[in-house]
Amino acid sequence: MARSFGIGTKKVGLPPGTLVHVGEERTEPVRITIFDYDEDSLHEFCPTSVDRCSDFRDSPSVTWIDVVGVHRPEVVEEIANCFGIHPLVQEDVVHTEQRPKMEDYDDYVFIVLKMLTSPDEPDGDDGIRSEQLSLIVGRGFVLSFQETEGDVFDPVRDRIRKSKGKIRRRGADYLAYSLIDAVVDNYFPILEAAGEELELLEDELLANPSTEASQKIHQMKRDMIFLRKSVWPLRDVISRLARGESEIFSDSTAIYLRDVYDHTVQVIEEIETIREILSGMLEIYLSTISNRMNEVMKVLTIIATIFIPLTLVAGIYGMNFDYMPELHWRYGYPAVLLFMTSAGVIMLIYFRRRRWI
Amino acid sequence: MARSFGIGTKKVGLPPGTLVHVGEERTEPVRITIFDYDEDSLHEFCPTSVDRCSDFRDSPSVTWIDVVGVHRPEVVEEIANCFGIHPLVQEDVVHTEQRPKMEDYDDYVFIVLKMLTSPDEPDGDDGIRSEQLSLIVGRGFVLSFQETEGDVFDPVRDRIRKSKGKIRRRGADYLAYSLIDAVVDNYFPILEAAGEELELLEDELLANPSTEASQKIHQMKRDMIFLRKSVWPLRDVISRLARGESEIFSDSTAIYLRDVYDHTVQVIEEIETIREILSGMLEIYLSTISNRMNEVMKVLTIIATIFIPLTLVAGIYGMNFDYMPELHWRYGYPAVLLFMTSAGVIMLIYFRRRRWI
Amino acid sequence: MARSFGIGTKKVGLPPGTLVHVGEERTEPVRITIFDYDEDSLHEFCPTSVDRCSDFRDSPSVTWIDVVGVHRPEVVEEIANCFGIHPLVQEDVVHTEQRPKMEDYDDYVFIVLKMLTSPDEPDGDDGIRSEQLSLIVGRGFVLSFQETEGDVFDPVRDRIRKSKGKIRRRGADYLAYSLIDAVVDNYFPILEAAGEELELLEDELLANPSTEASQKIHQMKRDMIFLRKSVWPLRDVISRLARGESEIFSDSTAIYLRDVYDHTVQVIEEIETIREILSGMLEIYLSTISNRMNEVMKVLTIIATIFIPLTLVAGIYGMNFDYMPELHWRYGYPAVLLFMTSAGVIMLIYFRRRRWI
Amino acid sequence: MARSFGIGTKKVGLPPGTLVHVGEERTEPVRITIFDYDEDSLHEFCPTSVDRCSDFRDSPSVTWIDVVGVHRPEVVEEIANCFGIHPLVQEDVVHTEQRPKMEDYDDYVFIVLKMLTSPDEPDGDDGIRSEQLSLIVGRGFVLSFQETEGDVFDPVRDRIRKSKGKIRRRGADYLAYSLIDAVVDNYFPILEAAGEELELLEDELLANPSTEASQKIHQMKRDMIFLRKSVWPLRDVISRLARGESEIFSDSTAIYLRDVYDHTVQVIEEIETIREILSGMLEIYLSTISNRMNEVMKVLTIIATIFIPLTLVAGIYGMNFDYMPELHWRYGYPAVLLFMTSAGVIMLIYFRRRRWI
Amino acid sequence: MARSFGIGTKKVGLPPGTLVHVGEERTEPVRITIFDYDEDSLHEFCPTSVDRCSDFRDSPSVTWIDVVGVHRPEVVEEIANCFGIHPLVQEDVVHTEQRPKMEDYDDYVFIVLKMLTSPDEPDGDDGIRSEQLSLIVGRGFVLSFQETEGDVFDPVRDRIRKSKGKIRRRGADYLAYSLIDAVVDNYFPILEAAGEELELLEDELLANPSTEASQKIHQMKRDMIFLRKSVWPLRDVISRLARGESEIFSDSTAIYLRDVYDHTVQVIEEIETIREILSGMLEIYLSTISNRMNEVMKVLTIIATIFIPLTLVAGIYGMNFDYMPELHWRYGYPAVLLFMTSAGVIMLIYFRRRRWI
Repeated sequence: MARSFGIGTKKVGLPPGTLVHVGEERTEPVRITIFDYDEDSLHEFCPTSVDRCSDFRDSPSVTWIDVVGVHRPEVVEEIANCFGIHPLVQEDVVHTEQRPKMEDYDDYVFIVLKMLTSPDEPDGDDGIRSEQLSLIVGRGFVLSFQETEGDVFDPVRDRIRKSKGKIRRRGADYLAYSLIDAVVDNYFPILEAAGEELELLEDELLANPSTEASQKIHQMKRDMIFLRKSVWPLRDVISRLARGESEIFSDSTAIYLRDVYDHTVQVIEEIETIREILSGMLEIYLSTISNRMNEVMKVLTIIATIFIPLTLVAGIYGMNFDYMPELHWRYGYPAVLLFMTSAGVIMLIYFRRRRWI
Repeated sequence: MARSFGIGTKKVGLPPGTLVHVGEERTEPVRITIFDYDEDSLHEFCPTSVDRCSDFRDSPSVTWIDVVGVHRPEVVEEIANCFGIHPLVQEDVVHTEQRPKMEDYDDYVFIVLKMLTSPDEPDGDDGIRSEQLSLIVGRGFVLSFQETEGDVFDPVRDRIRKSKGKIRRRGADYLAYSLIDAVVDNYFPILEAAGEELELLEDELLANPSTEASQKIHQMKRDMIFLRKSVWPLRDVISRLARGESEIFSDSTAIYLRDVYDHTVQVIEEIETIREILSGMLEIYLSTISNRMNEVMKVLTIIATIFIPLTLVAGIYGMNFDYMPELHWRYGYPAVLLFMTSAGVIMLIYFRRRRWI
Repeated sequence: MARSFGIGTKKVGLPPGTLVHVGEERTEPVRITIFDYDEDSLHEFCPTSVDRCSDFRDSPSVTWIDVVGVHRPEVVEEIANCFGIHPLVQEDVVHTEQRPKMEDYDDYVFIVLKMLTSPDEPDGDDGIRSEQLSLIVGRGFVLSFQETEGDVFDPVRDRIRKSKGKIRRRGADYLAYSLIDAVVDNYFPILEAAGEELELLEDELLANPSTEASQKIHQMKRDMIFLRKSVWPLRDVISRLARGESEIFSDSTAIYLRDVYDHTVQVIEEIETIREILSGMLEIYLSTISNRMNEVMKVLTIIATIFIPLTLVAGIYGMNFDYMPELHWRYGYPAVLLFMTSAGVIMLIYFRRRRWI
Repeated sequence: MARSFGIGTKKVGLPPGTLVHVGEERTEPVRITIFDYDEDSLHEFCPTSVDRCSDFRDSPSVTWIDVVGVHRPEVVEEIANCFGIHPLVQEDVVHTEQRPKMEDYDDYVFIVLKMLTSPDEPDGDDGIRSEQLSLIVGRGFVLSFQETEGDVFDPVRDRIRKSKGKIRRRGADYLAYSLIDAVVDNYFPILEAAGEELELLEDELLANPSTEASQKIHQMKRDMIFLRKSVWPLRDVISRLARGESEIFSDSTAIYLRDVYDHTVQVIEEIETIREILSGMLEIYLSTISNRMNEVMKVLTIIATIFIPLTLVAGIYGMNFDYMPELHWRYGYPAVLLFMTSAGVIMLIYFRRRRWI
Repeated sequence: MARSFGIGTKKVGLPPGTLVHVGEERTEPVRITIFDYDEDSLHEFCPTSVDRCSDFRDSPSVTWIDVVGVHRPEVVEEIANCFGIHPLVQEDVVHTEQRPKMEDYDDYVFIVLKMLTSPDEPDGDDGIRSEQLSLIVGRGFVLSFQETEGDVFDPVRDRIRKSKGKIRRRGADYLAYSLIDAVVDNYFPILEAAGEELELLEDELLANPSTEASQKIHQMKRDMIFLRKSVWPLRDVISRLARGESEIFSDSTAIYLRDVYDHTVQVIEEIETIREILSGMLEIYLSTISNRMNEVMKVLTIIATIFIPLTLVAGIYGMNFDYMPELHWRYGYPAVLLFMTSAGVIMLIYFRRRRWI
């Protein structure tokens, strides 16, 4: 949670367009990979110097520059300047607490997404982690900036390398679509894991409504708030892309974006469904506790109601008055025992009638 | 519930347009039925080979190809290619976790619906099951893809065979309307069953507010969340068809679609009503539990308040002090008994005044 | 409630435009009344045969055909066909589970309303009953179809007969407005009755928060859900009429419809207000129960806390040890009694300080 | 509350435009005041006969006819007819249960507002009372109809008399704005009083969460529902006036109306804030009750857990078996007392560890 | 809270445009600072007399007049008149209870913002304090009116003095943007502080669910209501500025405003997230209390259920009947002790099975 409130205090008071990295502290080197391809050829390499990026600026082929690590603002700045990117965009790339958004700068489109990764250990307290992906899509080039290395884009790289599907035959907008699609597709396993945890939790809740179970429900609820915050604005972003608001994205790609849009809506619906189910589970939890308390109270009441009056009877015959004729009757003792037993039995019958037992 | 989270993990990372069946595993053969009719003639047969579909592509009569079973993507692909359907549409047909939607591809309209079937045994834990129906409506043809064989379309087939109503005199758009109408009409018995279960549940709840009853309420709530997810987007789909967004649907059919739209809105309203009533029932349940606990507490308190003080009195006269003058009085014992009885009676009167009895 | 879920199962699978009566079973004969009037003349009679309706089709005067009872579809069909009404409209007239709606068929407007009647015995369990009123308003004629005979339209008939107000001087649209106005005006007494019941209920709740009171609240909540379902879509219907969406309604009548629209909004607001107040009353109910339980617990705790320790003291001096010096002291007994009394008094003081008494 | 449900039953069935007073029964005479002014001159007088109103119909100066008391429909009718007001407007003026609205009749604008007055005694059960103010604003005249005499308009009268501000230099629309402004400004003291009551209530709630406090919260909640109903539609009314929907209101007055609009939004926000705070207070109340019950239960449990076992011990040594060796030991009695004391102390330590004490 | 209800009672009844200071009473002198700069030159000084403001009215350079303290209306009036500001704007500047808004007066734009300051002592009961900032942005000048001296604008002043960033090269609209940006940036530390307090509170809640913790939650909830009220309308204000609704703001500045808009949306989302988490925490709190009560009840019930029946047994053998054969058996006493012990052990086993221990 600390994460979700770590919003840019370092930035306060600086002029706009100043590049300050905001996010987790990192020390790894920044890794740059360049794919340059058209239908017939493919160059893939990791440049040692940022300068080489400029070579691809005006090439007719599609250029994808993938930057992993935005904690060194000067690297981001150099690449971005080479493609003529507005300083505010550069600032948002390194300031990794943006919400998903899409900004159209005529010559290029700036898109911010959230990549989600579920924690390695499913039972850990880590919760779901989120990472900012910034895409700058221009005519003939795509710049992508990630925070950490992940394998989300591996299938896309694979398709480019092996020329699978239409990716090599189409432009930068289709590449951008493929990357967005990969990110959105990646939400589904996370939701599926949440769905499975939900079912486990539900079984646990019915078997043993412990405080831990209720805390897990709240933890999941909070995860869902977090997820929704990451996915909700995406719906609008992709809808605007699919509606062809930017000229960078061609009409034939818009059909594919409509597909991603459907997926995003589906993700949002699943999140809302999980939230509603979680609320229902909390209600189950509370009503189960109330029920249990009721059961406990009934046991207490039955015991007290049967035995306290009998104890009074025993107490009465334990009094030391000189003149208590019953005490000297031959069958006084068995009579009292009999009376006590029958009183208890009558009580039990009464409780059964009231459906307490 | 497992169902509602089984969204397409097999798909992650594949290029768009790759046909992978997502849904329950099935092994039955795929069954294809072809209806080809105009006002005067009707051909109905089950082709042994998919090739025969192409014969009807350009015929002036209305062709309805009904495919039951989408778990063999190659069959879907062959039929779809024969009618020139976009790969993304083919992908959505076999990927049976789509939400209801409508996509206009100029030459044809792609419509996804959910067919709902209530479980065979009304008391089972199965809940309501949902199946994807994909309709591709073009000029002169309708392709329908279902997951399992159902009898929802039997009345439509019957009307075609017996030339009942206007169906034989009108085009493919009217056939599509008839199929959609059949699906939506089928929601009503399910809602009616839910309504009846609701009434049973309510009676049960008032008679005996058990934990099982509260769990059934939650089960129904979840069913309604599921139902709403299936029906809610349909409203928009049919509204767009009825507004004539696609040229495939003629104005005279739009009037009929407006009628289906009304039914859909009615279904949604019923679902919302059931949801509100279920929420009210949960409140009843919780307040009944509170009330019962109150009753139990009152019984306990009355018993304890009457007998514990009397037990003290008995205890006092059971003490073994040498000098306790009361013990030697001739009428000490009856006096104490009388005191105890009157104290108890006074207590009872006090409780009655406080309306506890 | 059975009512609200009885939606058209008889209809499933029939071709559209098939007239099947859906609603409560009835056996009374259908009663038809015809009013034909202009500023100077008025014919009012109950035709023995449906044929006579056609006489008024093309008359320049205003014709109002009021049909009570739609359980004989053939009668509805004959009249409707005579005025050239679309089969789907005829179907909706006899299928009395429509939600309020307005459909414009250029030559006529089809309007569905709900007439509400409160039960005869205010304390009965019947709840509010609803009946479908279908209006078909054309140039020069109004067809109205009700389920049962009611006196809602009596004032309108009266105004026609006695030529009160402008009704005789204006067209069919004004007549339609008058009928709609009569229906909407009739909602107010029902709301008023609900308001009065609410106040009674509130007094009862504060005096004695019984389970019955909470069930009455829930019953009223459900009535309000039902009411809202009947009135909510009406707002849109009348708004569209008042905006002049149909050419059947003239601009001068639109001003009057705006007035009805205001009333409808007012009805909806009252319903929402009653719902909010009912929710507040449930909260009062639950907090009162909690409070009472608290009171009961306090009494129990005070009694137990005072008497259980004293009982121990009495028990101790009831032990039969040989060597218990206190037993033989001359003032042992009064000393113990004094000790017990003062312990009890100290306890009471302590409780008073804690504000428990 | 009776008020908010007293909607027009007297009206049901009457032709539209029939003037029937709906509202509290009144017997006071109707009081009419006429202001006729331009920048240089001012006539102010109370006409003895309604006829005199017509003198000012076509005067170039601004005429304000203020009518206090609408329970005599004939007076309203006469004045309104003199200015050519539509019968439906006249009906709404005397029918004092309208919601705030604005209707544009080209030649004049009809505006309905609610004037609120807080009860004289702040602790009374009266709640906030509401009164209908109808304004008819034409070119050169303003007719205002109030139910009872109030001092809300005194500052406006004062400004006219003393020619303060611009009021004498501007037209009827500015006068109408001044009256609306006076009404809206008057909402603030009511909200302020509510805010103060809220703070008192909160202190009371924390000090002593009694049933009375919870009932006061619910009373305030209901007041807020009532207030919102009166103010919410006003927002739309003034927004439409400020947007220049009517030609009666000039652009220079629109700037002032924008100011009133801001105030209205502020009033609505305050009401919503108070509602949210009240909901929070109810939650505090309920959790405080739960907490107190918890405290009570702990005391009971501690007492019972310590003394009930010790009572058993005393009971055991009070048994009358012949062979109970402990009874004859010299130090049996002190040993038992020691045992009891230490058992009690151990219990107390245990409870302290569990943080119950 | 007193603050949020202190809305302008002093104003009621005055003509519009009358300048009356509404807000906290202050006595400090008003401090005016003037910055006049273009790319090459900068004049910064505090004028002793308000007259000097007029010198800068028509200068081609950018003039920023910063006024701290609006409790002396005459100072505000003099400055505003010098720049030709509408009286209603002047009124809103001194009436410091406005909600954030933006009004376009063609020649200048009037913007109201809320500056928030968290209290100095984080544990104090002060809550967050809010101060009104009024900006009047014209062609070539910016007038800013604050209530108290703060250091929010220091970075902006610094950038002007040191000519950092583009601020000196751009116009008054960019200066206005910088000031708005500084205010919005300042919201983040406040949210961050709230986030940290939330985490502390959560730990405290789980460790010890005291009444204080629940009151702190409610305090934070109220703070969030307050915050939302201050920030929510800002979203609309900045959105309208960024959409270029006013001609004062150039297109190149609009890009920067879009950035501020994103921040505002982020602030609102954070507030909503905190509110949802607080609601979840209240639920945790209540369910923890229920759970604890359950635990307490179990202990009580176990103790009572084990010891009360045994006490009855002891009581029976403490009765003084003459003929009680067990009393004279040699092994009666140990037999009873054995019976009691085994009964207790059986009870314990039973409770363990029911999972109560």
